Amino acid sequence: MTDLWLIGIGTGHPGHVTLEGMAALRQAACVLIPRKGEGKEDLAHLRHDILREAAAEARVIEFDMPVRDGSLPYAERVAAWHDAIARRWQAALSEAPAGPVALLVWGDPGLYDSTLRIAARLAPAPAVRVIPGITALQALTAAHAIPFNTVNGTVTVTTGRRLREGGWPEGSETVVVMLDGECSFQHLPPEALHIWWGAFLGMPGQTLDSGPLAEATPRIIATRAEARARHGWLMDTYLLRRG
Amino acid sequence: MTDLWLIGIGTGHPGHVTLEGMAALRQAACVLIPRKGEGKEDLAHLRHDILREAAAEARVIEFDMPVRDGSLPYAERVAAWHDAIARRWQAALSEAPAGPVALLVWGDPGLYDSTLRIAARLAPAPAVRVIPGITALQALTAAHAIPFNTVNGTVTVTTGRRLREGGWPEGSETVVVMLDGECSFQHLPPEALHIWWGAFLGMPGQTLDSGPLAEATPRIIATRAEARARHGWLMDTYLLRRG
Repeated sequence: MTDLWLIGIGTGHPGHVTLEGMAALRQAACVLIPRKGEGKEDLAHLRHDILREAAAEARVIEFDMPVRDGSLPYAERVAAWHDAIARRWQAALSEAPAGPVALLVWGDPGLYDSTLRIAARLAPAPAVRVIPGITALQALTAAHAIPFNTVNGTVTVTTGRRLREGGWPEGSETVVVMLDGECSFQHLPPEALHIWWGAFLGMPGQTLDSGPLAEATPRIIATRAEARARHGWLMDTYLLRRG
Repeated sequence: MTDLWLIGIGTGHPGHVTLEGMAALRQAACVLIPRKGEGKEDLAHLRHDILREAAAEARVIEFDMPVRDGSLPYAERVAAWHDAIARRWQAALSEAPAGPVALLVWGDPGLYDSTLRIAARLAPAPAVRVIPGITALQALTAAHAIPFNTVNGTVTVTTGRRLREGGWPEGSETVVVMLDGECSFQHLPPEALHIWWGAFLGMPGQTLDSGPLAEATPRIIATRAEARARHGWLMDTYLLRRG
């Protein structure tokens, strides 16, 4: 049975890696690193930088990430993509030396990440160990020095798609949105809402904005478009709070 | 202006501290450590262990945590307690050497933690830097090797009090509960709910349980009571999922 270690590495700040993560990288026999294609080489570079920092002696096996099939409906598209990634992992694992195999996972392996679902597709099933990492949510609230929640408050963590479909979740004082490529906050009634937004959190290009939603919306849309054009890709997240 | 660094240290596993957190501990001139009273010395010991691991040369100033006034209503009780803690910090800061002052915060300084709200009470206002840390939510999902969210799913993060008052939050597939001393999950209709529970997450006494809610509820109530009696205190959290 393969020991598969999913190591959360945080959001791009090399200092986000935990001591437990660094120790695991030193103990791993092999590290799988995805190649995500042109324009995203900095994501692979960050992984190599972390391995160097850990003085890891693991064998590195790179693999190309498959491309999503845009013609399929959402749920099928996600499932087919996860199947395809699992096949790439399986091929890479067949070349791996004996011993624990590590994957460096952006953020935390549990939070809006597919790694656990892909690992569940492997046959024979590996023994999975998860090492938690700093998430974009924490990098966002840390960068703004704000609490995640109000006192005794409820926070909804959701996606851009769900926010567009369902609106403000009843009973929550705070909403945090992940995976939103469409600035879905612009469709909410902005009265009494405040936004804290961040892109490239923890990275050298970290960009922050915050303010009453009505005022901040056009600024964030413009900043986001400009940053995406300049970098070729963009990772951002935001927190909305009532009152 | 005082530089006040709030450093998330994770949930009790010394390996949860990040490289950024370790570097900050080495750079700090002074560290404030709360004494939480009898039976909770292990929490202070953990902080001292982390300082030793970081080879921190900061001056350590200990202070006694004030006691909550149980006679006040909830919101006033919390506010009065935060005021009292801020006065203890203020007194400790008056003894601190020049340079950054660090506080080691359990979990992450943003998540169900009062440190930022207490810091906002200090006068003159300090320059606050937040260093994110691994939260109990991540330690829980890592220990069980489960995802935090379903695909494109919504997660509600709430308190035991809010779960008792409001029931299952509409529109969420997943609920994560913090600060629940009363096993509030026992009041939910258990049909089609699954629970993943953990106490002392990341610590040597880590205890896990999971299963269909109806079956797991009596087990968790018994385990929790036994562990609390044995340790003198208990920290736990849980995740509930539909279907």
